[in-house]
Amino acid sequence: MVTIIKTTWELTDLRALEKGPVGFVPTMGNLHEGHISLLEQALDENDVVYFSIFVNPKQFGPKDDFSKYPRTLSDDVTQIQNCEARFPGKNVVVFCPADPQEVFPLDYTQTVTVPKLNSFLEGAQRPGHFDGVTTVVFRLFELVEPTKAYFGLKDYQQYLVIKQMVKDLALPVEIIGMPIKRGPAGLALSSRNQYLTSEQREESLILIQSLKKVAGLIEGKRTNLRKAKREIDILLLDSKWNYLEMRDAENLSDDLTKSKSITLLGVYQIGTTRLLDNLQLEIQ
Amino acid sequence: MVTIIKTTWELTDLRALEKGPVGFVPTMGNLHEGHISLLEQALDENDVVYFSIFVNPKQFGPKDDFSKYPRTLSDDVTQIQNCEARFPGKNVVVFCPADPQEVFPLDYTQTVTVPKLNSFLEGAQRPGHFDGVTTVVFRLFELVEPTKAYFGLKDYQQYLVIKQMVKDLALPVEIIGMPIKRGPAGLALSSRNQYLTSEQREESLILIQSLKKVAGLIEGKRTNLRKAKREIDILLLDSKWNYLEMRDAENLSDDLTKSKSITLLGVYQIGTTRLLDNLQLEIQ
Repeated sequence: MVTIIKTTWELTDLRALEKGPVGFVPTMGNLHEGHISLLEQALDENDVVYFSIFVNPKQFGPKDDFSKYPRTLSDDVTQIQNCEARFPGKNVVVFCPADPQEVFPLDYTQTVTVPKLNSFLEGAQRPGHFDGVTTVVFRLFELVEPTKAYFGLKDYQQYLVIKQMVKDLALPVEIIGMPIKRGPAGLALSSRNQYLTSEQREESLILIQSLKKVAGLIEGKRTNLRKAKREIDILLLDSKWNYLEMRDAENLSDDLTKSKSITLLGVYQIGTTRLLDNLQLEIQ
Repeated sequence: MVTIIKTTWELTDLRALEKGPVGFVPTMGNLHEGHISLLEQALDENDVVYFSIFVNPKQFGPKDDFSKYPRTLSDDVTQIQNCEARFPGKNVVVFCPADPQEVFPLDYTQTVTVPKLNSFLEGAQRPGHFDGVTTVVFRLFELVEPTKAYFGLKDYQQYLVIKQMVKDLALPVEIIGMPIKRGPAGLALSSRNQYLTSEQREESLILIQSLKKVAGLIEGKRTNLRKAKREIDILLLDSKWNYLEMRDAENLSDDLTKSKSITLLGVYQIGTTRLLDNLQLEIQ
């Protein structure tokens, strides 16, 4: 059963009736298979899943176009219904507030921040972005009171920021990171892919191919990190990279001397479209 | 709040929880403003409205194309959501079974028939059609147990057939007939209008214009019925009419000697598209 609600009072009314665990998948809509894989996992693990579709104004910078962010509610709901139909007896509550004031009343002044992780990589490229993310996720957690919340690992730094927020504030929710969904040639699924022409889509494969090339040089061995770093420096000669970095996968530190797992994070920009991807690997 | 369910067990489970009156709008989907006006009235009069979207195989004849009937669930749900949003605090349950067996299990052999009204006019044009309609409406009433059910008066004979069924079987439901919704030039809204080219759409206005012409000749006076009948005979020279008749509005009898209100019913066929319309008028 899929229930669609647009107001916060309906959300809290419904939530108050739930007796068991509640899964939560927060999204900004414009859904693709990546989002649906989060919903599937949530339905696997919970009888009731709250799924929010909310384009959060707080995570858009002055140059980002909040008003132009694609709203595809009707198609989104269809995808949710089709997914839910594969889980007989389970319930999905879709929270799709039409007005940002449903989530953030005018007198809501709280900002939640994770200073430890919000200033570099994506945080440097998009100042204030992660504060917008943590503030909305905190607020939605407050309303939905989920037992588990599901996030895609494509936004790996975001995933770590949210895990850190949950730790900092001792929130009673478990954060589940779900593997990146990719197209047939490896391109990570993203709402932004729709902005690419077919030629640009081909060009976009440089991103994942580069990550794989670097990972291939490392071969899981710490001794190969220096070689990998040289390859990254060569790749970065292509000015379309916003960044391409090797970081500790647990804390995003660039000191890898004690790292057990590392993450390769890259943003490759085609036109005005910033494509994010990352790859985790263990090293010994 | 809009809840979407696809199975009969969810429907009866949910229904069992309702304590107050329940409105019901049965449709075959492919919604237009006419359907939405039924939903609006139902939401005006009930806190909870069940809305079924079910393309009923039993009401299609062998020449009708059941499989080609337009299925537009995603767009339908959006229209329902937009309507519901104008009624804060009210609930809509959309029942959209994917499989006809949800409504008619394989061992369901019951046929409900209204012999008094099902054999002439539309009943003659589409043998078995009304039995299909009454059987599905009976079945849906059985599942939804509505307090009031809403039907459009565009299918006027259907409306009377259903009223008669409710009377015959003493069903505990009130049947509400809602006025025909029309386009700017008077064409009655219908799912079938989408099959018309723009030229055909202009031609289709002959239907309502003819009904109005006849009504204008009657001017509410029994003494003018003969004049109206002659006009109908002239209009019928156009072979695109399946029928154009004056009938008693209560029982569809063609004996109008004691009628207080009459209905003008016409079906005008353009290509393979049968356009239905009707007009009620009091006479003295």
